[in-house]
Amino acid sequence: MSQPARVGILAGGGPLPAQVAEALRRKGQEPFLIGFEGFADESLLAPYPHEIIRLAAAGTILQALRRHGCAELVLIGPVKRPSWRSLRPDTEGVRLLAKLGRALFAGDDGLLAAIVRLLEEEGFRVRGAHEFLDTTSNRCGPWGRVKPDRQAMADIRQAVHILSVMGPLDIGQGCVVQKGLTLAVEALEGTDAMLLRCGSVRQEGAGGVLVKMPKTGQELRADMPAIGPETIRKAAEAGLRGVAFPSRLTLVMGVDHCIKEADRLGLFLYGLGSDSISE
Amino acid sequence: MSQPARVGILAGGGPLPAQVAEALRRKGQEPFLIGFEGFADESLLAPYPHEIIRLAAAGTILQALRRHGCAELVLIGPVKRPSWRSLRPDTEGVRLLAKLGRALFAGDDGLLAAIVRLLEEEGFRVRGAHEFLDTTSNRCGPWGRVKPDRQAMADIRQAVHILSVMGPLDIGQGCVVQKGLTLAVEALEGTDAMLLRCGSVRQEGAGGVLVKMPKTGQELRADMPAIGPETIRKAAEAGLRGVAFPSRLTLVMGVDHCIKEADRLGLFLYGLGSDSISE
Repeated sequence: MSQPARVGILAGGGPLPAQVAEALRRKGQEPFLIGFEGFADESLLAPYPHEIIRLAAAGTILQALRRHGCAELVLIGPVKRPSWRSLRPDTEGVRLLAKLGRALFAGDDGLLAAIVRLLEEEGFRVRGAHEFLDTTSNRCGPWGRVKPDRQAMADIRQAVHILSVMGPLDIGQGCVVQKGLTLAVEALEGTDAMLLRCGSVRQEGAGGVLVKMPKTGQELRADMPAIGPETIRKAAEAGLRGVAFPSRLTLVMGVDHCIKEADRLGLFLYGLGSDSISE
Repeated sequence: MSQPARVGILAGGGPLPAQVAEALRRKGQEPFLIGFEGFADESLLAPYPHEIIRLAAAGTILQALRRHGCAELVLIGPVKRPSWRSLRPDTEGVRLLAKLGRALFAGDDGLLAAIVRLLEEEGFRVRGAHEFLDTTSNRCGPWGRVKPDRQAMADIRQAVHILSVMGPLDIGQGCVVQKGLTLAVEALEGTDAMLLRCGSVRQEGAGGVLVKMPKTGQELRADMPAIGPETIRKAAEAGLRGVAFPSRLTLVMGVDHCIKEADRLGLFLYGLGSDSISE
């Protein structure tokens, strides 16, 4: 039996890179990680073979991936668009930046899609992180004990509609609706910052819902919407009643832990089927 | 010559109610103001005949307006949707709330439009605040010394497109774009809070632009987008290069002061013509 191709993980911030690495190890595959300097949390990568390399040192990155026999790649964990001054690309970096060309000035979606294409031209197969993480729970409907009531379902539908209309504008992946009022729309600030401000615009009565959904045409292999226990805690602090997301298009970090937190805090976690998100 | 109808001002927060009152007095018309308790700043209303009344005391409000001979009304200054518990409507209030019916559960646009209709059914003519304020400056193009460059014009067009697509969703009136990236979209938090978070998501290089625009179908007589010197200062603090708005559909508070602040801070103020905002 042939050994499956070694998977290289290009690791940005947060806990997800290590979770993908752990999932691979459990399947008997030893991953190799490249942590992006200034973004990756090296303490989390420490248990796995890894190197920390500057984002723009493309030559060093490609060499390291090839030296460790990586044929497949996963891009996972947030990376902030670096400043031009701090970029300092190596020779290979300059060549690849030139190849990215106009995409460098595009929105996040355009840039990430171009980076995925470029890595595939370099001979790697780029895969989505969700292919490796726990996927036993991508079921539709309520995941925990709490179920959304009729008002919450109406708010979920409204948020899905808003995100669908906004999708092609490449703005953000999240939106909070409470009793028909749109409390907040996510742009570059991210979901956590959006949830933080929902507390102060909260209306009386039954709390709102958070819906996260990929943007239309979003390169899911590079930037999939993610939720975790922290999302659920922040949603609870903002007075929300639950979180909904398309189950097959969302990275749920620590499914069991998420369900436990949601049950403990009395929030629903609601997986949307593809029927409810296509408009 | 017949005396023009007395104008009643239903005053929420901020400086605009007093500015409308002053504009009327300059034209030789003595206004009558009702300041909503908990929202209106009584120190600003003090120079004019006024009463402070609870929002839900509709009977007292209508009586006061009629007693003072008001035939026309202006609704101006922000009012937060009160909680049901704090509302305590009087008898007339209960009747009018029942009449508002479903609109009470609509978004802001739906509710304000319903309130305007209701006041007109009560026999008042509801007028827009912009009809009374300084309108000599609603010209298109740059208002001050600074002109938007080509990148800024592209960002303005993108923000206008975003707000046009989002308009029918009844979300917000503002959006910040920097070099093709949407930094922030305004929902219930308001423009100031949106500008505050733009600092932390700001990208390298030429700064972004703020565009404010009414939502599609928005009842301009009750809720017109407004900008003032404070908007310009907050935009400057967020690293923006300018502010654009449809000149005929925006309340600019203190035009001269706004232009002076923009010039001092090196920001552009750009009036959009109706050709550039219809899509």
